[in-house]
Formats: sequence, structure tokens, C-alpha cells
Amino acid sequence: MAMTTDTAARRLSWWGWGYEDAGLPDGERDSLMAMLSGHLGLKEVVARPVPDVDRLPLPAPRVRPPEALAGLCGETNRERAAHAHGRSFRDVVRNLRGQIEHPPDLVVYPRSEADVAAVLEWCGDANIAVIPFGGGSSVVAGVEPDVGDGYAGAVSLDLGSLASVSEVDARSRAARIGAGIRGPALEDALRPHGLTLRHFPQSFEHSTLGGWLATRSGGHYATLHTHIDDFVESIRMVCPAGIMETRRLPSSGAGPSPERLLLGSEGILGVITAAWMRLQPRPRFRARATLRFDDFDTAAEAARAVVQSGLNPSNCRLLDPLEALLSGAVAGGAALLIVAFESADHPLDAWIARAVELGADHGGTCPEGIHLSAGGEQPGHDGAAGAWRRAFLRGPYLRDALARCGLVLETFETAVTWDRFAGFHAAVMEATRHSLEQLDMRALVSCRFTHLYPDGPAPYYTVIAAGDPDAQLEQWDQVKAAASEAVIAGGGTITHHHAVGRDHRPWYDRERPDAFAAALKAAKQALDPAGVLNPGVLLDVR
Amino acid sequence: MAMTTDTAARRLSWWGWGYEDAGLPDGERDSLMAMLSGHLGLKEVVARPVPDVDRLPLPAPRVRPPEALAGLCGETNRERAAHAHGRSFRDVVRNLRGQIEHPPDLVVYPRSEADVAAVLEWCGDANIAVIPFGGGSSVVAGVEPDVGDGYAGAVSLDLGSLASVSEVDARSRAARIGAGIRGPALEDALRPHGLTLRHFPQSFEHSTLGGWLATRSGGHYATLHTHIDDFVESIRMVCPAGIMETRRLPSSGAGPSPERLLLGSEGILGVITAAWMRLQPRPRFRARATLRFDDFDTAAEAARAVVQSGLNPSNCRLLDPLEALLSGAVAGGAALLIVAFESADHPLDAWIARAVELGADHGGTCPEGIHLSAGGEQPGHDGAAGAWRRAFLRGPYLRDALARCGLVLETFETAVTWDRFAGFHAAVMEATRHSLEQLDMRALVSCRFTHLYPDGPAPYYTVIAAGDPDAQLEQWDQVKAAASEAVIAGGGTITHHHAVGRDHRPWYDRERPDAFAAALKAAKQALDPAGVLNPGVLLDVR
Repeated sequence: MAMTTDTAARRLSWWGWGYEDAGLPDGERDSLMAMLSGHLGLKEVVARPVPDVDRLPLPAPRVRPPEALAGLCGETNRERAAHAHGRSFRDVVRNLRGQIEHPPDLVVYPRSEADVAAVLEWCGDANIAVIPFGGGSSVVAGVEPDVGDGYAGAVSLDLGSLASVSEVDARSRAARIGAGIRGPALEDALRPHGLTLRHFPQSFEHSTLGGWLATRSGGHYATLHTHIDDFVESIRMVCPAGIMETRRLPSSGAGPSPERLLLGSEGILGVITAAWMRLQPRPRFRARATLRFDDFDTAAEAARAVVQSGLNPSNCRLLDPLEALLSGAVAGGAALLIVAFESADHPLDAWIARAVELGADHGGTCPEGIHLSAGGEQPGHDGAAGAWRRAFLRGPYLRDALARCGLVLETFETAVTWDRFAGFHAAVMEATRHSLEQLDMRALVSCRFTHLYPDGPAPYYTVIAAGDPDAQLEQWDQVKAAASEAVIAGGGTITHHHAVGRDHRPWYDRERPDAFAAALKAAKQALDPAGVLNPGVLLDVR
Repeated sequence: MAMTTDTAARRLSWWGWGYEDAGLPDGERDSLMAMLSGHLGLKEVVARPVPDVDRLPLPAPRVRPPEALAGLCGETNRERAAHAHGRSFRDVVRNLRGQIEHPPDLVVYPRSEADVAAVLEWCGDANIAVIPFGGGSSVVAGVEPDVGDGYAGAVSLDLGSLASVSEVDARSRAARIGAGIRGPALEDALRPHGLTLRHFPQSFEHSTLGGWLATRSGGHYATLHTHIDDFVESIRMVCPAGIMETRRLPSSGAGPSPERLLLGSEGILGVITAAWMRLQPRPRFRARATLRFDDFDTAAEAARAVVQSGLNPSNCRLLDPLEALLSGAVAGGAALLIVAFESADHPLDAWIARAVELGADHGGTCPEGIHLSAGGEQPGHDGAAGAWRRAFLRGPYLRDALARCGLVLETFETAVTWDRFAGFHAAVMEATRHSLEQLDMRALVSCRFTHLYPDGPAPYYTVIAAGDPDAQLEQWDQVKAAASEAVIAGGGTITHHHAVGRDHRPWYDRERPDAFAAALKAAKQALDPAGVLNPGVLLDVR
């Protein structure tokens, strides 16, 4: 997975997830479709071809850069198309249809922070919208230049060059990192120091530090510090009103936290250019167990016991029976709770033993036993947990292949307190299934817990449905709206880690207190007086 | 310590810390002074008398409440004097001098949230400054109505009646709590549910939930979640622009966190009236060890090893040799590292054993051995750790007694990354001692770590100096300024948990990025358009 000098040259897909050469091989796709046909009643399906990007009829750029910035700009069809959408199902289907309605007029590639400031100044003066762009992995239309008619144009600001690890403080275990760096390059740079950011969202290979910060990304780990928020010492942001750099501190109680206003700001307040991030030593000790339960509700109670125990497992991931089945982890019928601990300091025997005991108290069995290891850099990826992990990392490629075959796929995620969870889960499943039935779509709807808190889980839902290839988008819209409605009505959040972007706005606006919206809008006006930064995301300024 | 119906009737001191009847007995004070005389070269000292509050010549109130609010208001000398200052050394000395320059014109005691809104409306219309008042334990002039000449008057808004625990959600381990509740009453209400907020700042008995939230209070525990920030599910705040209630969630990634803007807002954005707080089960298992080290620097390295181990001790408190000596914990010369674990779920043998091993790796010895206990509600408070804990809780009463005898006492606290710590500590000690020498004051200057983070400690400094009874304030000002200057110049924060208030403004203004100040000011103007809430704290609006 590590990005090497060879792989750095691999071409990224303009229309779908990741690298062009990493898409699902046809044979694998066909097996998958055959496996799904039984569940979904699929008839013969044909994979939609990928349009020739060079022949897409994109509108001509409406703006020209000033001479000083011309060398930083690109305007080929491929560049503009690749920056026109994120990588949600909706984005991928629109790309496959050649339906690119809001391409950026230009893509700008700043080489320095001064370049970023110069672009903001130009765009502020010329009334051009600026869309900060990290890895482009948004699944909420957060990087789509759909900014309305009020602007002379829109540029996508690709921060990929601001990608250095410029300082490592091994004593404090922290580093100053350029915002444009992607996961693999970051980990490569930290590895020689024996350190890791240990932040592994599913988008890890194709998302950036700046994107993680701007969207309050959730990592792979289930408890304790998993949101990127908790790893931040300081953030540096270029705003139209000036540069903001917060003081590098382990903690402070001096006024409202400046970092916490920038975290989750999704490009509307300024452009994050660098951050001091807390790091961790690379783990040496590992302990893992996979517990089986007869049903999801019982497994959820076990998960609650583990997360309320204070043991703080690295992983505590619950798969409902369908997720477990689809991931190939178990033959069928059981819900799985994968519990794992990691440490760079001490063996974890006492920790995993107690976690398994808590699982057993709730009727869980542990047929594969406890796996303990020490010293290895790479954990063994065998067993049920390993099968699930492989599927997780390939997920987006898989989705793209199925989308090309006309299926409708959606994942949505949330968090809710335990007291509400049972009713909430039933209502969300019911609303989702009902909308699918109304559309006469056979579907698989599954749930897992990706993250756990003492006061509630973060459930993550997956929908795989037999769609109408000519109406995939409209079908997706209806299912997405029904699910989002149930999430908000049931007391959840519209997003635990995918962000708000443009797609989640209607529900975010209901979740967010009006008075906070007023405060955020005022803060934006102070930092971006011309209102050119990522218009329409989080709030409307004009 | 628990507040009972009997103790609830105890009268609070108007001039110093806590209850009137809990001040240091004269005999104990005299022993303490005798102990300090040797160190400080004290001559015969006389305790300054407490002025008769009823005879203090306070200026007449400048404002009258509207009829509907008159029943909520008080204006006796005692009430106004008790709400005129917080409880810093400077506050106590000024009270003893009878020097009360900015008493509130009225003290208003709202009985409901509607009352709070009505007071804000009246004061906004009448240009009267409003100072939200919880327990009044501020040590940074955060509750002092020193609002300048731009207001028709100033009222202190005492929230002590908004003190109910209105809902307990045992499944999620959370409760909805009125902001005016004090620590003991809160714990009394949670105890029957087997739950605790487990937030024990030194001010615990005389501070409120709302105050903790508004100032980003730090609790007694050393690692993991210790700032009150991390225990917040949702906050309800009455702003002049309307009521803001954030959604109760275990976590979210939807835009910048609304709670984090309110946390640390120190009364300038609105009045916190209630919050949903995360709770914890009451601990059953405890493990504790006290490690001795030859010197502070070595002990600090051991503390770093423990906090970077991932063991997450409940306590990891480092006392330099002077702190250890003054607390009566050790006979002399050694630095102490007190490490403790607590759990409601599992025995802690493996945890404490590894922590002691890490201490031993750094040359620490553990003459009292490891203490393990299970099942007891109250930990045994014997040994060195117990002696220290008793001194900690009595600290403010002690300080008041010494202040009356003319001593100058100051505590200041900060946080700084490990890479800077050694130089930072030397510079802060040097600057403090130098300012004391310039003033020709003999003094004890000591340091402990109150909280620890993987990327840095939170050092807490104590100064006990022979002052000039007629110039205590001026002496305090100079020492405080010299220390604060060194803290900011050395890369620390002006406050880890005491807040900014009015006293820390000059240094906070340098710590905080200008662009963030502009954003915060804009947010305040949106929520408090008349600019009447706690003017001068955190920023200047007019």
C-alpha cells in the first residue's frame, strides 16, 4: 500500500476511486455480480463504459488567471473533470454518464503558501469562487464547484504540492506536516522515526491531512482518539483576511479553542496549509479476538459493555449478520464483534482477556480464540478479522464496479446515544427499506458499528440495491433522503465522519442550532469578507 | 465534603474562599507561619482583620430593575461585595483592604431560564453589562464588573438556582444538569445512580457546572479526559439573540463543533443554563504507587514515559522536592511521582505494575510499594499521596490565612510541549525568582505537574513570598507579570485551566491569533448584538 516512487507515477482515475489500474478486474466483478444476483434478482447486466474524458463537451473556462499565476493553472478536460466531483456514488454515476455540470473553470496548483494567498487575493478581487481540493475523496459534494450564479467563475485549488513533513519532534511525538500530503506518503515519512499518525480512514490512500482536518475525519480505530480533531496541536490556515496560526500546545484552557473552529470548516473559512499533529509510536504488541453472537442486538449490548469498561480497545467493530456474510468472514447467521488492542509499550493479555470475558457475559463465543503477537510491524491478516479488513480497503473500487453495472449503492453513517439506539436503528432500517420497496428495488441493507463511544455507537449503513441503470441517480436521491430524514428525526447526527458538504445541507441545517449558524456565518464574514471560499458548503453567505 | 441539608445553610465568606466557618483556625495558621518564617525570614506578623462588610462604603446602585424582575434582585452590601470579585489572591487582598471598586449595581438571582432571558433583554435595552456568576471562584477576574464607562451599570447574574439534575440516562451514562449546580450537590444527585461526573477541580466545592464549561475547567485527573470539554454531549445557552441548544450526540463530524465554541466563552456569548454531560460509573478498583526520584528533571522524564505509554493513569502527578516537602509528603530532597489507576470494571494489577516498571527504568524507587484495593467507595488516604491530597483541598483556605498575614501568594499554570519543557521551566523559574529578588522578597517557588499529555506536561507553579503588607497587590502584580511574560515567551499557554478573564488578557491577546480574535468578535456580535455580556473578558467589543 505504501506509495513508492514507482507508484507515485500511477495515473489516478478521473471518474472513479483511486488509481486507474487498480479497478476491479472484470472476472472479479462478474463473480461478485453472480453472488449478488440471487439476493437482488438481477437480470443480465452490462457494465456501462467509461466516457472518453478528452471528448467530454465541457464549457469553456470563464476566467483567465493573472499572468503571475498562469503557470500554476491547468485547464485540460481531464484536470477539470477530475476536479469537478468528489467520489460519492452520485459523483461516479454522473461521471460515467458524462454529466459534468459544474466543472471548475481552472484547476490551480499552488507550490507554496504564498501562492495560496495570491490565489485568494485574485479570486476575492475578481469574485471567483475558490474550492479547496485535497485528495478529492469527498462523498458529500464538498469539492464540487456548484456555487450558483453569483460568481464570475470557480477555481479548484489543488493543494497536492504542500506535502512535506518539515519538522519531527520525537520527544513530544509530533510533526509539522503540509496539508496536501496523502496518507501513504505521510506514513512513509514518519516510519524512519518509529512514529505514525495512526489515522486510517477508508480513504487513506487518496485523501490528505488538510482534507481530514477540514472534514473532521474519523480514523480506523474504534475508541478513544479516533477523530482527527484529537491529534491536532496547531493549525495554520491562509484566510482571505490573513494567516491564522494557532499556538502549538499539548492543551490549553485559554478561551474557545481556535483549532476547533477550523476543524470541520470544510474550506469556508480559509485554506489549511499545515498542521502540527500528535503522533504515536508504532505498535509492537497486538491482541485480537473475534466474538460471535446470535443476533445484532445482543452483540450491540456486548459492544456497549466493552466500550464502557474503560479498556479502550483500538478496534471494537460490530458487523451485523449480513455484513459478516458479505465480507466473507462467516458462513452465515452470526453477528461479529471484532475487538483488538495495540500498544508500543506493553503486552495486552490482561486487556483482551477482560474484553473477551465481557463478550462472553453477553453470550458471545470466540471460536478462533485470542491472537496475541509482539514485535511484528504488520499484523497477521488471517481469520475473520483479516477477511473483513481486506474487503474494507477495496470497498470503493468494488462500489465503482457495481455502479457501472447499474446497481445503486449508498453508505451513510451517524452517531446516536445508547438510550435511543434500538428505536433509532429500527426506524432507520425501516425507512430505508420502505423507500426501496416504493421504488420496487430489491436490496441488501446492512449495518456495522465503525466507532464506539461510552455514550453511544456510530452505526454505518450500507445499501446495495438492484437499480434501474437509467434512473440510478434519482433512485439514489430518494433512498438517501429517506435515510437522512430518519437519522435526523431519530436524534442522530447527519454525519459522524463523512462531513456535510453540499449533499447533507438540508439535514445539517436542522441539526445545527440557528444561533450557531449565525455565529459561524459572522465568523466566515470576518475571515472571508468577499465570500468566495467554497460557497454553499455548511452555509449560504449570499 | 458532601453538601447536606445542614451544610447547605452554612454561610459563604464574602471576602475569601468557601465557608465562613471553614477558615484556617488561628493555631494552625500560627504553626504554618512559624514553619515558613525560617524560609522567608518573617518578622512578627499580625493577621489583617476582615472589614465589616455592612459598613463598607459601596457606591449606590446606578440602575433599578423593571418591576417584573425586582423580586429577583438583591442589593445588600454583603451580596454586592461577595459578587464584586472572584477569589484570586488579588481579590482576597482587595476585599481585606475594603477596596471594592467595581461592585455590581445589583445581584440578580434568576429562578428559571425565562428569567435569564428577561434579564438579558432588559440589560440589552438599558445598556447594562451582565456578568454571569456561577460559584464565583474565578482567579482571573472573570466575574468582576470592571466594565469601563460605556455602560449604564452592571449586574451580576447569579445562576445558583438553576441547579437540578433533571434527567439521568443510565444506559448512555449521561445526565442533563442545570448549570448552577455546585460539585457536591451534583455528586450527591448522581450517587444513587452509581454514577459520577468525576470532575474534581480544586474549586469543586465552590464552583458550578456552568463555570466549569465557560472556563474549560481542568479536573483532578491527570490523563485522558480531564478538561470538562471532553465530557460534554450538549450545551444549552441563552444568548441575547436567542436560545442555542446543541444536539445531544456521542460524537459528530458535522461542521465545526458548536459546543467547542461555547466552551471557554467565559460568559461573552451567552449564559449557559444546562448541559448534557457524560458520566462514569463509580470506581471499584484502585491501584496507586508513589515513586521517589533524586531530582525533578529525572522525575519529569519518568512522567513522560508513563504518559506516553498508553496506560492512561487516572493520576500522574509530579511534585518537585519543595512541593513534596511543603505538602508533608516526604522529609526532603526527593521529587515524587504519584501514579494511580481507577476502574469500575477490572483489577489494575497489570497497569500499575507496568507504570512502576517505567518509573524504575528512570531510577525511581517505590518505598511504600503498590497499593491495590477493590470495592471500597472511598480510597484510603494514607501515605504520601494522601498527605498531598489533604493539602490540595485545603489550599485556598490556607492561602487566605497567609494573605491576611501579609504574604504574597500566587499560583500560575500552563502547558507546553516536551521539546520545550526543560528550557521553558528554567526560564519561568528564573524570571519569577528574578522579579522576587528585584522586589527584595524572600520566597519559595515550587512546581508540580497537575496534568500530563503525551506531547507535554501542564506545569503548575506556586509562589509563597514574604510580602510588604502595604504593597501586597503591587508586589503580586509584578511577580505575576514577570511569570506570565516568561510563560508566553517560552511557548506555553497563559492558562491550562484557570481561564483568561480580565487578568490574563494582555498575554492571551498575544497567544491567540489575530484572525481568530476577529472571528470570535464577529461571533459575539452575532449572538450579543448590544455587547452587554461580560465586557472586557476575552476581547473588547467596543
